[in-house]
Amino acid sequence: MLGRGAAALLLVLLGAARSGFGAPRRYTPDWPSLDSRPLPSWFDEAKFGVFVHWGVFSVPAWGSEWFWWHWQGEGQLGYQLFMRDNYPPGFTYGDFGPQFTARFFRPDEWAQLFQAAGAKYVVFTTKHHEGFTNWPSPVSWNWNSKDIGPHRDLVGELGAALRKRNIRYGLYHSLLEWFHPLYLLDKKNKLNTQHFVSSKTMPELYDLVNSYKPDLLWSDGEWECPDTYWNSTYFLSWLYNDSPVKDEVVVNDRWGKNCSCHHGGYYNCQDKFVPESLPDHKWEMCTSLDRASWGYRRDMSLADVLSETEIISELVQTVSLGGNYLLNVGPTKDGLIVPIFQERLLAVGKWLQVSGEAIYASKPWRVQLEKNKTSVWYTSKDLAVYAIFLKWPENEVLYLKSPITTSATKVTMLGLKGDLKWSKDPDEGLYISLPQLPPSALPVEFAWTVKLADVK
Amino acid sequence: MLGRGAAALLLVLLGAARSGFGAPRRYTPDWPSLDSRPLPSWFDEAKFGVFVHWGVFSVPAWGSEWFWWHWQGEGQLGYQLFMRDNYPPGFTYGDFGPQFTARFFRPDEWAQLFQAAGAKYVVFTTKHHEGFTNWPSPVSWNWNSKDIGPHRDLVGELGAALRKRNIRYGLYHSLLEWFHPLYLLDKKNKLNTQHFVSSKTMPELYDLVNSYKPDLLWSDGEWECPDTYWNSTYFLSWLYNDSPVKDEVVVNDRWGKNCSCHHGGYYNCQDKFVPESLPDHKWEMCTSLDRASWGYRRDMSLADVLSETEIISELVQTVSLGGNYLLNVGPTKDGLIVPIFQERLLAVGKWLQVSGEAIYASKPWRVQLEKNKTSVWYTSKDLAVYAIFLKWPENEVLYLKSPITTSATKVTMLGLKGDLKWSKDPDEGLYISLPQLPPSALPVEFAWTVKLADVK
Amino acid sequence: MLGRGAAALLLVLLGAARSGFGAPRRYTPDWPSLDSRPLPSWFDEAKFGVFVHWGVFSVPAWGSEWFWWHWQGEGQLGYQLFMRDNYPPGFTYGDFGPQFTARFFRPDEWAQLFQAAGAKYVVFTTKHHEGFTNWPSPVSWNWNSKDIGPHRDLVGELGAALRKRNIRYGLYHSLLEWFHPLYLLDKKNKLNTQHFVSSKTMPELYDLVNSYKPDLLWSDGEWECPDTYWNSTYFLSWLYNDSPVKDEVVVNDRWGKNCSCHHGGYYNCQDKFVPESLPDHKWEMCTSLDRASWGYRRDMSLADVLSETEIISELVQTVSLGGNYLLNVGPTKDGLIVPIFQERLLAVGKWLQVSGEAIYASKPWRVQLEKNKTSVWYTSKDLAVYAIFLKWPENEVLYLKSPITTSATKVTMLGLKGDLKWSKDPDEGLYISLPQLPPSALPVEFAWTVKLADVK
Amino acid sequence: MLGRGAAALLLVLLGAARSGFGAPRRYTPDWPSLDSRPLPSWFDEAKFGVFVHWGVFSVPAWGSEWFWWHWQGEGQLGYQLFMRDNYPPGFTYGDFGPQFTARFFRPDEWAQLFQAAGAKYVVFTTKHHEGFTNWPSPVSWNWNSKDIGPHRDLVGELGAALRKRNIRYGLYHSLLEWFHPLYLLDKKNKLNTQHFVSSKTMPELYDLVNSYKPDLLWSDGEWECPDTYWNSTYFLSWLYNDSPVKDEVVVNDRWGKNCSCHHGGYYNCQDKFVPESLPDHKWEMCTSLDRASWGYRRDMSLADVLSETEIISELVQTVSLGGNYLLNVGPTKDGLIVPIFQERLLAVGKWLQVSGEAIYASKPWRVQLEKNKTSVWYTSKDLAVYAIFLKWPENEVLYLKSPITTSATKVTMLGLKGDLKWSKDPDEGLYISLPQLPPSALPVEFAWTVKLADVK
Repeated sequence: MLGRGAAALLLVLLGAARSGFGAPRRYTPDWPSLDSRPLPSWFDEAKFGVFVHWGVFSVPAWGSEWFWWHWQGEGQLGYQLFMRDNYPPGFTYGDFGPQFTARFFRPDEWAQLFQAAGAKYVVFTTKHHEGFTNWPSPVSWNWNSKDIGPHRDLVGELGAALRKRNIRYGLYHSLLEWFHPLYLLDKKNKLNTQHFVSSKTMPELYDLVNSYKPDLLWSDGEWECPDTYWNSTYFLSWLYNDSPVKDEVVVNDRWGKNCSCHHGGYYNCQDKFVPESLPDHKWEMCTSLDRASWGYRRDMSLADVLSETEIISELVQTVSLGGNYLLNVGPTKDGLIVPIFQERLLAVGKWLQVSGEAIYASKPWRVQLEKNKTSVWYTSKDLAVYAIFLKWPENEVLYLKSPITTSATKVTMLGLKGDLKWSKDPDEGLYISLPQLPPSALPVEFAWTVKLADVK
Repeated sequence: MLGRGAAALLLVLLGAARSGFGAPRRYTPDWPSLDSRPLPSWFDEAKFGVFVHWGVFSVPAWGSEWFWWHWQGEGQLGYQLFMRDNYPPGFTYGDFGPQFTARFFRPDEWAQLFQAAGAKYVVFTTKHHEGFTNWPSPVSWNWNSKDIGPHRDLVGELGAALRKRNIRYGLYHSLLEWFHPLYLLDKKNKLNTQHFVSSKTMPELYDLVNSYKPDLLWSDGEWECPDTYWNSTYFLSWLYNDSPVKDEVVVNDRWGKNCSCHHGGYYNCQDKFVPESLPDHKWEMCTSLDRASWGYRRDMSLADVLSETEIISELVQTVSLGGNYLLNVGPTKDGLIVPIFQERLLAVGKWLQVSGEAIYASKPWRVQLEKNKTSVWYTSKDLAVYAIFLKWPENEVLYLKSPITTSATKVTMLGLKGDLKWSKDPDEGLYISLPQLPPSALPVEFAWTVKLADVK
Repeated sequence: MLGRGAAALLLVLLGAARSGFGAPRRYTPDWPSLDSRPLPSWFDEAKFGVFVHWGVFSVPAWGSEWFWWHWQGEGQLGYQLFMRDNYPPGFTYGDFGPQFTARFFRPDEWAQLFQAAGAKYVVFTTKHHEGFTNWPSPVSWNWNSKDIGPHRDLVGELGAALRKRNIRYGLYHSLLEWFHPLYLLDKKNKLNTQHFVSSKTMPELYDLVNSYKPDLLWSDGEWECPDTYWNSTYFLSWLYNDSPVKDEVVVNDRWGKNCSCHHGGYYNCQDKFVPESLPDHKWEMCTSLDRASWGYRRDMSLADVLSETEIISELVQTVSLGGNYLLNVGPTKDGLIVPIFQERLLAVGKWLQVSGEAIYASKPWRVQLEKNKTSVWYTSKDLAVYAIFLKWPENEVLYLKSPITTSATKVTMLGLKGDLKWSKDPDEGLYISLPQLPPSALPVEFAWTVKLADVK
Repeated sequence: MLGRGAAALLLVLLGAARSGFGAPRRYTPDWPSLDSRPLPSWFDEAKFGVFVHWGVFSVPAWGSEWFWWHWQGEGQLGYQLFMRDNYPPGFTYGDFGPQFTARFFRPDEWAQLFQAAGAKYVVFTTKHHEGFTNWPSPVSWNWNSKDIGPHRDLVGELGAALRKRNIRYGLYHSLLEWFHPLYLLDKKNKLNTQHFVSSKTMPELYDLVNSYKPDLLWSDGEWECPDTYWNSTYFLSWLYNDSPVKDEVVVNDRWGKNCSCHHGGYYNCQDKFVPESLPDHKWEMCTSLDRASWGYRRDMSLADVLSETEIISELVQTVSLGGNYLLNVGPTKDGLIVPIFQERLLAVGKWLQVSGEAIYASKPWRVQLEKNKTSVWYTSKDLAVYAIFLKWPENEVLYLKSPITTSATKVTMLGLKGDLKWSKDPDEGLYISLPQLPPSALPVEFAWTVKLADVK
């Protein structure tokens, strides 16, 4: 690994250490120390974020954002045929670059949409495993969005638009780059060298933090090498001690082989991971509107898109289990978020307009789920308990088993005026009479929330 | 106009008159005779069709399918800026041609989707005002889908896929071509010449009919010239007397200036036209899922897309008023129908699964609409009367004013088993008690149908 | 064939017959009459012209201007591989169109070069067998240089530049188009129909004559069909009787199968044809600077280019045998004439500066060639006889066998001042003492001319 | 500057120091030591080489190989208009990359041509100031000929072809890259940092030497920074002491601001520089067949191309003055050397076939030039003196002033058999009677050589 001196040199060279070496250092570059840092509170309160995968993979827009790897790393036949049938012989992945135009990219429209979706934070791919940087990285010449394709600083522009709406900004960053020659060289050297880390990964991470002051760093691409190769703990100690975002920044757990689910900030564990019971560490469930891809696919069909009920069910489950829900969209190479994605996001926003009280800044309750015909998930906030039921009971009477009522217990439905009638079950729990309303008069079409005041 | 001899010559030259001049001629080339032809019955029974606008305009995919005209016919500033900002100087509309790849065009998937949408016929743009032909027209060399772009016979391929599913096939054809030099020449000659008609329009119309044997010809682009310029009546007399589709073919009313709403087969009158009361001539309402365009627009946003309730309301209204409903989608240049369009079409199909009985092969009833809070539209078939109400009554009791009940009157709701209770209003009409069902148990989410047996 | 009436109709329709039917008709549409027309004198006097092959074939610029035919007509393997290796699957010849940019086409520079080359006329491909028209033909929509590629009227622009320099303008025009669907249809009909002729060939020929008033029509592509199919004699009778260029226009002999070398204006017979002895009909030898192609080939190597001595030898031989010499260049798709072609053309011009007196407006003499070590070719003008010898005699004494001297005979060398000494051979002919000059003082480097005054 | 430790580290990291640190070090990294190294003898003997400029600049192929700089570094109007008129808005220099196809690049044909031209060495641009590397540099990801455009190792392929013909291989390499972000950063830091040198320049130089084992390194792009910034002396000491080419390699003098004409191997001084009198240090004159550019320009006209007499005059002058002559060609983006360049190179080869004896391995004589009407340049080899006269004397008698004849003096003309008659001038020098030959019998057309044996 790079010695401390070399790391310090890097900081100096790259202007990373502007905030001064004289400040009191609270965290040392090791996991026990780093893991001891409390998670800034905004993250747990946010609950719902939007993930955006955008890059050169949005140009072929076929298969998945792992297009390059499937094609040339693995040599999958389908990808080879796709290239053979549609492009001239010898066409490379790099040749896609100029077609990434971002022609219609209007970051304010994105930000407006994400706000209407109820997202409190947005995580944007600054660089995926392909290595193309969505900002003018000084160490990714001619393979970044300023030199090639959009000719714009996508990371900067989106950040500015989000901040105008007080949406927190997270930066996705892949440590590895599938085909970077220096990374390949390091791997050939059995990771005894760190050419790639010192001349590419670290300079870019420092540059991202210093330039865009992110609220969140969403690390990825860590799995092939240990944190000692990536120099992760040195970076994180700088990030926590001396970076311009040291007080508010949040990171995830992908900082080296075997780190995920064990070290770092909050945990993602695997993509689309959901725990079975309430974890004791803050976590985030990331998933994608397109089941088959995180990047945009032209040939995505309706059946590939998560339905509104699937999304809201997952959101409810995740929050009930103490997680954040990070829902991904892949914009087109033109910079558009297609209508089906708009529709899904706005459906979430519409639901949160009514039910957000049970979600944002909520805490897990002592019980998470009552598995029955109505599928009830609980959250809590201050003195209230929220029971979100996914299916309407046939007889219009909702049974909740876990809450212990008192004489002061009051029950309401989010989105409706007035209290609901309820009665104690002799054994345990309570029965709630739901209102009889025509379909259009219900506050939401799915996943209704009853709020219980004064229960235990 | 072309003399009769010249027209006959054309027929001979183009092999159009294979079925022989000796056959009995029933229709003469004049409107009184042509208008006297009864409309083949399949059309009125079909009720719901899908319209498909696809062409070179799907490449810029911006503004509308009138892109070329807005840009270079009218010189609209927005279009000029779009071209200036995104294409090299001197780029022409023709230069878009090679980018119309139809890469992912799978006609069977389209046909499957249209069938799932409940469409009984599909109308496809063989040639829009741009003049590009979606089949290998022998008189549109290098400006057709076989020579340029897709390198496929789109008209033929889609037809084959539709016929496999017994969906009727309609061909949209524009008489005029905005920029065809011979058309411009004829206009310069104040329509005293018909170069364009004799060497382009007529050869193509005959070729389309002979090659693809359409069930429907959807004529357009007629408005600048009288039918005598277009030679429409000669063509129609051949179509009705001697063409291979003479028995089943249906046409619309756009065959010359002042023809629309007055002559031809069924009437479209204007785009998106809906009559106020029941017309005495079969008509069709054509509209587009994208409010702003018939061709695909990359920058279409969700707000531009008709909602499910808008679509079903229009469908119900149209059928109640004796019309057919032709709903348009614009595929991408790649040949894909984007998910939001899939979703809308499938929503119609899902609704028709339940309510189709009140739509297909129905007839207008003596009353069409009861304007009240529930918005009731009537249709009828055989002895039954169907009342489709768009909004659920708050008190769960539906009032119908127009039906005259008898003792034998029975009321059911499409999609539910069992009869509904009803009671006669002392004055006129009847009250129907709707079932109390949880949201998910209702047969449809919107526009419920009650079927009345034995009413007058 | 088209009846006379139909042809007349065509004339009327296309505005071809502006000069009036009332004029005295001198030529009837048959070969005996047409062949009797005297050739306008300018052509024989011109002697040297430049041929220009430019079209969509200049885009692949590989193989030859018959690219399309070799590739898709014959399916030659080399062409198929070239396409497979360099273009996406499904790429058509039509797709080359937009790349024919003519970016650097400056017709004045071409005209200046051709003038410096000593050319008295230029023949330009208005349309080769590919069918792409280098002018905005009204019957070649979207397959012409105005709609596609250059977006300019190449025929018109070059003509204007040539006329400024008093260079005669010839238009090359191919009767056939390899892949035109109407031509293919006529051939399928065993030439019993003339759809192609009436709607494409003839309208374009009339349009060319009326619009550009050429001095020369260089017909080609005639070989598959008889003149009766092409309607050639009707066209020529109009051209000679009533066209705006009836007095000055010259045509060649390619007007139908079996016409070449037998009918029309002057004769080309075959490409690169040279007769063995003096013909009794005016002829023209056409050849190309690139031995292997008439159109530009990117991969042309120096060995493929005619050398200066080859060119001048051919020119001398041709003129001596009564022919005109038409030397071809193929410009690049950008509109440039590459330096090696400039060099060759300027070398001809430089030679003609000195020796042009023996070429322009010369007449064949009673002897053409003396085959010996010096290779002497004769021409004559007025009272002078010119002997052009290709190799310098080793002893500096030139022997001419055929001239019969008199006491008044005077001998000079073109480009030098002063008379040369000569002496009569006792038997026949004369000996001429050539001047002893250092290499740089010779008037030309090759093919020196002695002028003999007062010989028989 | 990088400390010695860091440089050593680099060597280790990049595998550069394979030949072992234990070898005796002859040269220290300072100019006095480096300048003391004798020039390997092959270079002075070679006399004539071909220079090849090829890169992404060959794609616009307009203006000059400094296209990018003129366009965006200086913002020259002509370049801005060229881009505006021919490319879409926002098109970058990087976007040219994929069009650099090298489609017809056949290195054996190049090598054959250079051999036929008489070149003893070839210098090839591995990387010009644009930074695009013509080999798969591991530190120029996606901006090299393997990832983008040709998808081939151009440096390697050309080298292999040259070596088959025993032509020495020189690699041109630009130290600076106009727009490399790390170079710009170093300049912004007033050259107090060397990020660019350590992560780009040096790794690439070592890689070039180790991978391709060049006979010559032709350094360029040094002028903005001192050699201490470039670390040149460290590199050269490695090159001379330990590199795989330490015995044979030759370098030029462009290794830092103020180095040129003072330090390094042989001197180029400025481009196209010719000294007025015999220098005391080996030098090389580099010039380009296209007067206006080193890279290929599509719009180059014949007048821009050096004539044969200009080239041979310069070659003669250069060799007489002790220099080598390095003549440049710019291939097209397709990898072709256009015919006019072939012609010029072959003309040199043809001349050298006859006169090479006076050129290759020759030494300057005590006199270089006799300025008179015949323009005589001298060279010498062993006991012979060669007088090359550019113009043929009018009276066929050549006067040479400087040689001191003896009774044994013999005079011949290269390319002719037999001795020439001569006579001593009473004063000084001698008169030589040239042979009287017809133009075609002269051994060369220009710059004839007389060889004087036994003169002083």
